[in-house]
Amino acid sequence: MPQISEKGMAMPSSPIRKLVPFADKAKERGIKVYHLNIGQPDIPTPDVALQALKNCNEKVIAYTHSAGNISYRKKLAKYYQNIGINIDENNIMITTGGSEAITIAFMSTLNPGDEIIIPEPFYANYTAFALMCGVKVKTVTSSIENNFALPPISEIEKVITPRTKGIVIVNPNNPTGYLYSKEELEQLAVIVKKHDLYLYADEVYREFCYDGYKHFSTMQLAGIEQNVILLDSVSKRYSECGLRVGALVTRNKEVMVAALKFGMARLCAPAIGQIIAEASLDTPTEYFESVYNEYIERRDFMVEALNKMPGVVCPKPKGAFYAVVKLPVDDADTFAKWLLEEFEYNKQTVMVAPASGFYSTPGLGKNEVRIAYVLKIEELKGAMETLAKALEVYPGRV
Amino acid sequence: MPQISEKGMAMPSSPIRKLVPFADKAKERGIKVYHLNIGQPDIPTPDVALQALKNCNEKVIAYTHSAGNISYRKKLAKYYQNIGINIDENNIMITTGGSEAITIAFMSTLNPGDEIIIPEPFYANYTAFALMCGVKVKTVTSSIENNFALPPISEIEKVITPRTKGIVIVNPNNPTGYLYSKEELEQLAVIVKKHDLYLYADEVYREFCYDGYKHFSTMQLAGIEQNVILLDSVSKRYSECGLRVGALVTRNKEVMVAALKFGMARLCAPAIGQIIAEASLDTPTEYFESVYNEYIERRDFMVEALNKMPGVVCPKPKGAFYAVVKLPVDDADTFAKWLLEEFEYNKQTVMVAPASGFYSTPGLGKNEVRIAYVLKIEELKGAMETLAKALEVYPGRV
Repeated sequence: MPQISEKGMAMPSSPIRKLVPFADKAKERGIKVYHLNIGQPDIPTPDVALQALKNCNEKVIAYTHSAGNISYRKKLAKYYQNIGINIDENNIMITTGGSEAITIAFMSTLNPGDEIIIPEPFYANYTAFALMCGVKVKTVTSSIENNFALPPISEIEKVITPRTKGIVIVNPNNPTGYLYSKEELEQLAVIVKKHDLYLYADEVYREFCYDGYKHFSTMQLAGIEQNVILLDSVSKRYSECGLRVGALVTRNKEVMVAALKFGMARLCAPAIGQIIAEASLDTPTEYFESVYNEYIERRDFMVEALNKMPGVVCPKPKGAFYAVVKLPVDDADTFAKWLLEEFEYNKQTVMVAPASGFYSTPGLGKNEVRIAYVLKIEELKGAMETLAKALEVYPGRV
Repeated sequence: MPQISEKGMAMPSSPIRKLVPFADKAKERGIKVYHLNIGQPDIPTPDVALQALKNCNEKVIAYTHSAGNISYRKKLAKYYQNIGINIDENNIMITTGGSEAITIAFMSTLNPGDEIIIPEPFYANYTAFALMCGVKVKTVTSSIENNFALPPISEIEKVITPRTKGIVIVNPNNPTGYLYSKEELEQLAVIVKKHDLYLYADEVYREFCYDGYKHFSTMQLAGIEQNVILLDSVSKRYSECGLRVGALVTRNKEVMVAALKFGMARLCAPAIGQIIAEASLDTPTEYFESVYNEYIERRDFMVEALNKMPGVVCPKPKGAFYAVVKLPVDDADTFAKWLLEEFEYNKQTVMVAPASGFYSTPGLGKNEVRIAYVLKIEELKGAMETLAKALEVYPGRV
């Protein structure tokens, strides 16, 4: 029997999804599972989008332009202009979700053996995308004690080597919910320029900033216009995770030419998804206000509930809808599995994503989990009550 | 300015799409362009599929299972069982088009530096997918004189080295329209088994077999059950190219485990597309009969029209909807560009895909083009008339 590849063997299991089979088994036993593990919001997709779906009058579901429908790119360019990002449709390539934007950005700019720097904890799938390109991920560690702020620039410079080609910044951050300030990003820009690095900027949670904080985009940084590659997605913005529509945005023409060649190879991004994503750009402001209010309520409730549990530490996230939470447990992986396999409270349990999978440095995040506050407040109440009970009786409590 | 990657530089432009900007300019000049370059059928998507789109009542367009919706996989397994391929839903991973099935299959099984063998001419994007994985494509040449039949097994064995890990077979073939026989595939199975290779079988044109010939699948070959990875797609079968829904099918559990890890990293295939693809499985037989009749009519008309043109040779394809055609021109790349930039006949011109991009051996296919008979018969008539006129006046005629 022929062998699978080294990459296939090295490929990490997703910390968000690897426990799904255990959750399925719990459900088979009649247990209600609160899904705090995955960033799948329960927020309805905007009406304009759902209407566009209903109104699809395509007779032939045909390939689109490899860079995406021109009408969509033009309208999307206006969206960016409205938030202070000055670009046009030629700076945009529509991708199959943010995931493909990342893969194509890496493939277009990185050689096997190159290194990229990511502050950890970080969105676990970056490990997978880097692995696909034979690229090494180096990390600087942000810590829960410091609310997961950007580590000092001096720490970042320490890990730069001649093979370093870029820095990945996810803002607002997944998994920590941290919102990088303009000042932090300007500091980052200095070393990006100094070492002529790419800055891969994942801003898919841009609309989810709380407490009056405004999002500042890396695309607005002066002096590194040719270095920034913006990775975007409609998944969270419009609760359209399943559409698989994202975008790679850059002012760097050479990168765009290379990216488009990868784009041509896979033909196009989903056609129906592009139609719906285009319609979603007309989502009224009230939608975002109501979503904002909903998340604020959930976050405030959850953070308070968590910090009330003995031994639990949860910083208050300023963006996205995640928090990395410290738990009084021996091993969060064991705990997360135990929740699904052995625990139940009133026929309920909770599914969380062990944070170890979001760290690259072995041993880190061992007593942390990522929690997504993507459930309705009533559900979240049930989930928090269940989690509190679980922590009381977990045999590996420390 | 940081540099783009070696892969980004080496990435070939798609022979099917690279001339699109010239076609756009011709259209701006008021010229009608007959698109014979791309496998985008004008055949309507089945009603059951379009109805499913209209009936989509999702309120939240959510992620699906990374392997694809279980209901779709179960129903798709039945489709395969009905055509004599004995597998179940656990042997199927739903992908974002056939393209992603290829990339994930390669990523899961091949290491950088490994070699795969593909009979040339071959679907050009395989070069791109191999390049993405750092894999070398070795070819054996099939020739127009021999109707593009599988080259002798002895020729294939000649190019096998210790780094050879697999053979790619596209059946029915794109770009040649050749349909491999059971006997040819059984010969292939012998060397696949002998050298313990993977057999990557792209059978997306399975339903398009003509003249009473029946498709025989590599999944039906005895003795190499663990070696075959089937790459499939709904794009052509149901005229759903824009859906981006495909499948990776294999009985090899280790391959499936690895593939699923890549699948988890990119979260899921398009959710709406999966719903439509699932509904498409109920497409009535009459749909396929009418499509079959349509293609037979087009093929017969086109092959006859082409062979009537002085100096043109077009073998009669037994499958798919492509033909590789020999033209009396100095250079098909120059000719194809000239058609779009300098030629017009009654305000019309023709777009073809130069075949050189489908060959890996330099110099081959220089006077060949791929033509897709994806236009209505009236359109095809206009296209053939225009092409005939063009060949009469082309300055580089030989």
